[in-house]
This record gives sequence, structure tokens and C-alpha cells, in this order.
Amino acid sequence: MTDTRPIPTFDDEPASAGRKLCIICSKGSLDMAYPGLILANAALGEGIETHLFFTFWGYEIINKKTMAKLQFSPVGNPASHMPTAVSGLPGMQSMATRMMKAQIEALDVPAVPEFLDMIKDAGGHLWACRMSADMMKLTQDDLYERIDGVIGATEFIEISAGAQTLFV
Amino acid sequence: MTDTRPIPTFDDEPASAGRKLCIICSKGSLDMAYPGLILANAALGEGIETHLFFTFWGYEIINKKTMAKLQFSPVGNPASHMPTAVSGLPGMQSMATRMMKAQIEALDVPAVPEFLDMIKDAGGHLWACRMSADMMKLTQDDLYERIDGVIGATEFIEISAGAQTLFV
Amino acid sequence: MTDTRPIPTFDDEPASAGRKLCIICSKGSLDMAYPGLILANAALGEGIETHLFFTFWGYEIINKKTMAKLQFSPVGNPASHMPTAVSGLPGMQSMATRMMKAQIEALDVPAVPEFLDMIKDAGGHLWACRMSADMMKLTQDDLYERIDGVIGATEFIEISAGAQTLFV
Repeated sequence: MTDTRPIPTFDDEPASAGRKLCIICSKGSLDMAYPGLILANAALGEGIETHLFFTFWGYEIINKKTMAKLQFSPVGNPASHMPTAVSGLPGMQSMATRMMKAQIEALDVPAVPEFLDMIKDAGGHLWACRMSADMMKLTQDDLYERIDGVIGATEFIEISAGAQTLFV
Repeated sequence: MTDTRPIPTFDDEPASAGRKLCIICSKGSLDMAYPGLILANAALGEGIETHLFFTFWGYEIINKKTMAKLQFSPVGNPASHMPTAVSGLPGMQSMATRMMKAQIEALDVPAVPEFLDMIKDAGGHLWACRMSADMMKLTQDDLYERIDGVIGATEFIEISAGAQTLFV
Repeated sequence: MTDTRPIPTFDDEPASAGRKLCIICSKGSLDMAYPGLILANAALGEGIETHLFFTFWGYEIINKKTMAKLQFSPVGNPASHMPTAVSGLPGMQSMATRMMKAQIEALDVPAVPEFLDMIKDAGGHLWACRMSADMMKLTQDDLYERIDGVIGATEFIEISAGAQTLFV
């Protein structure tokens, strides 16, 4: 049998050839949704194969009912520089969320649903955790429609073979 | 000198050959204890060498006094969809914890101590952070008895050579 | 052309040759600032190329105004074993912070600014996230003076090629 494949010219090979990034998104707050999306977007721009795996609270990011309404809570986060007596007041979470959304928008960073569209358009893969779906009694119909699939932890382990992995 | 080793037959080699996963468990809440355990279990099922390193709040998972009583707090977690005025009320953490434990049990996911047994039975390695032990004035006697050892950050860095690493 | 380089003696090669560690520091609380610093320090001690990327709340660690005053909040952290009715009281965050700082000092672990100095002295690299700077309207003048640079997510993805990566 003759190998008829062209001789590879490694000079043309991008630095990212074969590089893979897998990000586990486990948080459901506005401030912790963005790091995974921003890193995925940057990786895709570099031609890196990119997978996002949404699990536990991260389901908020892909649940149709919640994905456009993620909230930021300053409670228990000393970096917000707001005492609990204030941050715990009724209405404070909505106000802090509105302020953060305005800051994000001012930087021309898209809202979460548009960001997911952008990641899919760039060739990114979005996976939902089956156990989380079972726990919350959700099906794929409840989720952002461009999810690649609902998979178990074992399938995620297989997908992430050879990848750089991040747990957000 | 003649190499007398058998010629390797790569066809028999599992995809996971030489693959290693190291998970740093730094959180002590019920909801953030499970992701590390579930991923470790899935990796072991795929024949991947797996190490868990418990540090800081993650000690709750291996401390005999706390490991069966991990709590979930909805406070400061907007994904819990509970206003702080409610989630901060006395008794609310216990109630939220009971509900989450019931959901986990309904999925046939074992409680934390049994999960650690399962990981050890499958060949997983459990390491406790020495600095955290010193900080909390705990010794190996205070910890789950099947811990492989209490080690420093340097030893963890050595163990994790060539591994995929996650910080939970 | 003759290759005049000395013949490499692989016996002298450290186990860490070519190993790289990149840690994303995204949290701004005292308890979550230390894991990244401690792991970076341990990796540098093993001769591993080490990069820290400060983003979102992680800016607290490199902001001159806040880096010496990181706080720990027991609110919403069940591992602190303090009911919200207590942990949310005025003055409780300062008290919990003072206690944790004393515990850290008792272990001869340096305060955050000294820890950054130590990491720089050992050859570590510190990067600040451009988007976070823009969001908080900060410039490099506002930051710890030994920061290597303010870079975008794309540059971080390039720096982290071939690295083990952690998201703290």
C-alpha cells in the first residue's frame, strides 16, 4: 500500500497545531461566567480546539431560563468592598448586577447568550453535564439550542484527553 | 548490551496509557466537594492515574469530624435563586443542605466518606496538604484513615509532573 | 556548517526541564490569594517556568491599594463553621481576617506583597489582565511595580502554550 498523503510542510504548521483546551464551568454567577467564555474565545482565536463543559451551578449559563439573567452577588466576596450589612440588603444584588453588566457592556464584551453564539460560530464545543441535568430535572430542550450534547463525566474525561484543562 | 525487552505492541495500549490527573480540592462546601470526587472517579474508570490533593477548606472533605457533615450555603451564591434576606436566616443552611443531599442520593451518588472509599478501592491517591494541617493543628490521626500521606506543596508539584491539573 | 554546541548530557537534566506552570488568579480574598502564590513558589523551587495571570477579583492581589489588606469573609463559606447570623455581623470580617493572618504568619508564610517579591526574586512572571484593568479603570501605575506587563487573554493563551494550567 502506497502512502499517497502529501509530505507535511511543518513550516506552515501553526503553533497551536494539536493544542486543545477544556474548561469546566461550574459557577453560575455573572462574574464567574465570563472568565471561561473569555478564555474560550481567546483560544478559538488562536486556532485551538476548545471545549466548555457546563456542570453544577454552571448550568445557569446554558439554561434558557437563566442564561440572560445571571446575577452577581457581592455577599461573602470581600473584593467587592461592601460590608455584609449593606451587600445583604434587599435590592443590593440587582444593583450590583446592573453595575457590572454596564461595565462589561462598556468594554464591548457581549452578553452571555451572544457570547455563546460567538463561541459556537468560531467552532467551539459546548457540553452539558448529564448528572447536573438529572439533578435539576432538565432536558436538552431546556438548554441553549446549540449545545453539542449532554454527556457524563466519563465522556468528558475522554474528550479532554491531551488537553489543557481548567476548572472555573 | 542487548535489549531483551519485548517489542511493545501498541495495539493493546489503552488510550489512557501514561495519562495522569491531579485535582486540588480547596473548597469545603458540599456543592464544591463533589466535582473533584466525580471527576476523579470517572478518570479512574478510564484507567487514568489519579491524585487528589486536599488543601485549605478542602480539609473538610478528609477531616473525620466534618467529612460526613459537609454543608451547602446558598448565601452569596446567586445561582441558588434565594435572596440573602432569606438564605441568611437561621436554619436555612441546614435546610438547603438536606435538600441537596437528597438530590445527590436520588442519583445514587454516594455520600462523601463512601465516595472516598470508592476512589481508594479504584486505585486513586489521596494526599493532604501539610501547611493546611499545620495551620489547623491537625495530624494524620484526625484524617480519613486511607489518606496516602501528608505532603508539602513541593511534593505535590513533583507528583503532578506530566499530569492534567485542576484546581477545584 | 558544523554544529559546535556541546553534546548534551541528559543525566544532568532536571526532571522539570521544559516544564511550565500557569496559574490564573481570579479571586481577591485572603484565603484564595494564597493557594496560587504557594503553588507558584513551590514550582519555582523545582526549577519550573512559572507564570501568574491576575484577572477579575485577582486584581486585589496586585493593586497597590489593596494588596496588603486582603480580607477573608466567612459569609457563605460553610467551612468557616460560623452561622450567617454571626458571620454577617459588623466587625466579623475584620476579626476573621486578623485571625487568619495570625495563623499564616505563625507558619512563617510571608504577607502577600512580600510573597510577590519572593516569586519575582525566584524568576516567576506576573501578568495583569488588560480587560480587568480597563473594567476597573486602572493602569500599570496602580499595580505592584514588578508586574511583567498588562496583557490580553490572547497573549495569555500564547504564554501558556505547553503549560500545566490552573484556574484559582
